[in-house]
Amino acid sequence: MRLIEGVKFASTNSEIKYKNRDDLSLVVFDEETSVAGVFTKSNIVSSTVTWCRKSLENKKAKALIVNAGNANTFTGEAGEEIVQKTAEEISKSLNCDKNKVFISSTGVIGEIFDYKLITTKITGLINNLNNDEPSFRACAKAIMTTDLVEKISYKEVLIDGEKIIIQGFCKGSGMIAPNMATMLSYIFTDAKISSKDLQEITNEINEKSFNSITVDSDCSTNDTSMVFATNKSGSLIQKGNNSYEVFKKSLLAVLLDLAKKIVKDGEGAKKLIKVTVSGARSIDQAKKSAFAVANSPLVKSAIAAFDPNWGRIIMAIGKSQVEINHKNLRLSIGANIIVENGQKSGDYDEEKIRNYIENNQEIAIDINLANSENNSWTSYGCDLNEEYVTINKEYRT
Amino acid sequence: MRLIEGVKFASTNSEIKYKNRDDLSLVVFDEETSVAGVFTKSNIVSSTVTWCRKSLENKKAKALIVNAGNANTFTGEAGEEIVQKTAEEISKSLNCDKNKVFISSTGVIGEIFDYKLITTKITGLINNLNNDEPSFRACAKAIMTTDLVEKISYKEVLIDGEKIIIQGFCKGSGMIAPNMATMLSYIFTDAKISSKDLQEITNEINEKSFNSITVDSDCSTNDTSMVFATNKSGSLIQKGNNSYEVFKKSLLAVLLDLAKKIVKDGEGAKKLIKVTVSGARSIDQAKKSAFAVANSPLVKSAIAAFDPNWGRIIMAIGKSQVEINHKNLRLSIGANIIVENGQKSGDYDEEKIRNYIENNQEIAIDINLANSENNSWTSYGCDLNEEYVTINKEYRT
Repeated sequence: MRLIEGVKFASTNSEIKYKNRDDLSLVVFDEETSVAGVFTKSNIVSSTVTWCRKSLENKKAKALIVNAGNANTFTGEAGEEIVQKTAEEISKSLNCDKNKVFISSTGVIGEIFDYKLITTKITGLINNLNNDEPSFRACAKAIMTTDLVEKISYKEVLIDGEKIIIQGFCKGSGMIAPNMATMLSYIFTDAKISSKDLQEITNEINEKSFNSITVDSDCSTNDTSMVFATNKSGSLIQKGNNSYEVFKKSLLAVLLDLAKKIVKDGEGAKKLIKVTVSGARSIDQAKKSAFAVANSPLVKSAIAAFDPNWGRIIMAIGKSQVEINHKNLRLSIGANIIVENGQKSGDYDEEKIRNYIENNQEIAIDINLANSENNSWTSYGCDLNEEYVTINKEYRT
Repeated sequence: MRLIEGVKFASTNSEIKYKNRDDLSLVVFDEETSVAGVFTKSNIVSSTVTWCRKSLENKKAKALIVNAGNANTFTGEAGEEIVQKTAEEISKSLNCDKNKVFISSTGVIGEIFDYKLITTKITGLINNLNNDEPSFRACAKAIMTTDLVEKISYKEVLIDGEKIIIQGFCKGSGMIAPNMATMLSYIFTDAKISSKDLQEITNEINEKSFNSITVDSDCSTNDTSMVFATNKSGSLIQKGNNSYEVFKKSLLAVLLDLAKKIVKDGEGAKKLIKVTVSGARSIDQAKKSAFAVANSPLVKSAIAAFDPNWGRIIMAIGKSQVEINHKNLRLSIGANIIVENGQKSGDYDEEKIRNYIENNQEIAIDINLANSENNSWTSYGCDLNEEYVTINKEYRT
């Protein structure tokens, strides 16, 4: 993996929660780095999310700092102080505007920690910054909480004949186990693009990647997906250009790769379930029913048991209350047609479908609502095993 | 338990699915019995639900027949034929209009069965009709699928000084494990009330009882809640009268009692969780956030572990995206205040809350969103244990 120019990484231990591992990451950018971000839709958010939303107005990034182990959420004025002091310390050390410092936290909700646990580490981190793969990987590990593996993605893309790089990492296990597994994602690219265009692309592709995955239907107070572009390589990517579409597609591929890695690392999950709904009256309706299937505990536990219990999929489509052309409804699992023309297919072979589910890591469920408008959406979920409950029962005790 | 006048019960085995137990119930009413019903909101419904919705227009009931083991859903024309033949056979035997026959099915989705399994049993059932407690209880048992216990409720009420009776039974385990645990409820009363007024009351109280419970957020294709009134006792209950409010309140108490019995019998459930949200901008917002908490797998698994993991409740409130007066938000579990004035209470005592959760069967979570409009809603859920996943993994295999 090559690293892009204009970004340096360092990580260390802060003792906010963990003792024997890095849990504090600092990323520093060259001047004129573009930035875009999307955040949780929850009405209760971390002080860090409020800070980042405001700082984004500034349209430039100089640094990113992330701590794992404490979410700095529901921590009132003390939480705001942590954010303020962290931004001040970094801006002083790097001689930059405070609003060019982006801050994320992930971990337990409602517990206050001493901001000095972060601020006293800044100088050390800055002295340790490196533009190399081990430092990049160390940061990818340092943002983890209940994740079993670090999640990294890398892609090289030709923009008008010149190679650019998109690379990044994320954390999250159980899309969202709010106390320890908030989803955070950071992408770094050397592409040349304004923050405005980068934001527009990020909004769009985030919907099709991180906002299309679900492990347990719970949504966190700290979810963050950011993209930083150092503007070092290739020609300018602008809305309307062909390169804009190429870049968007490549960035989506990286985000989707990371999103699927989160689902695969879902708490107790053994299989990725890819639910595609087509033939919907609107994109919204397609999305609603794709999520209804991917979120259904009954569908998820059937898949965990390799059980082609298609009645549960029918139930989930029905409960999503989308418009269905009943007489032409189609449903298949993998290449196996289960429902066609609105009824159970004559070719239905339960043993074949059971084998497909048992022997594949990625299970495809395809539903065609058969309306004349052919809108579609794909959601990604995982199976539900006893371990999910065990992990979440035992987490804090 | 006294039985009301004008209703007779009988049950038998049909071999549609079960072999050694009653699974077919017939209830027959005297002439002029009022009837009301509400049904699943799913867009995919059983042929029986379509039939009942249509028959309700007739405003009178003569018979109710319920089979357990097969949902008669997604069964196409064969499913419609089952309903037609059943209604015809009963109307012929009882010499009544077909549309006075109400039909329910619960069980596996998508499998066709021979209508003769029902129609050949009608004469036997009619010859066995009784107005006594054993027959009533036998019907309550015969409608069960994965339920561990039958669910019966009984109440006597004074209407203008005269005693009337409200009695009924329901089934459901996991509000809605669609293949075998559709929710069905039937109430019988000797009250004097028009079908129109009865329907209005049923719509309203159903929202506050059966539509306020959740086991797994899945919603079935067959859910049915019906009320039959034989008009044999007391003075006429009419909208505007005081007796209307008394009757409504009593009927709600019976439905809520049955609804809570479903949650307590939830798959793998050990505790009932009662979530009350007050101080909401609207009833809709109160409902949305009460359900977000009651449905959250992370809140449910924390309760299963007696863990006062209140951060997860905060997360669930946030994700419901309702308006919150952050500075005055309040949260308590039982009598223990956890959050007040928008932050963790100084009196927070984790051990005390853990003891409360461990030692109570019914756990109260009270949330005050602290808006000036004081709308509230109560939802009832249950804890989430490994057994839920085990039951639903193993159900069909």
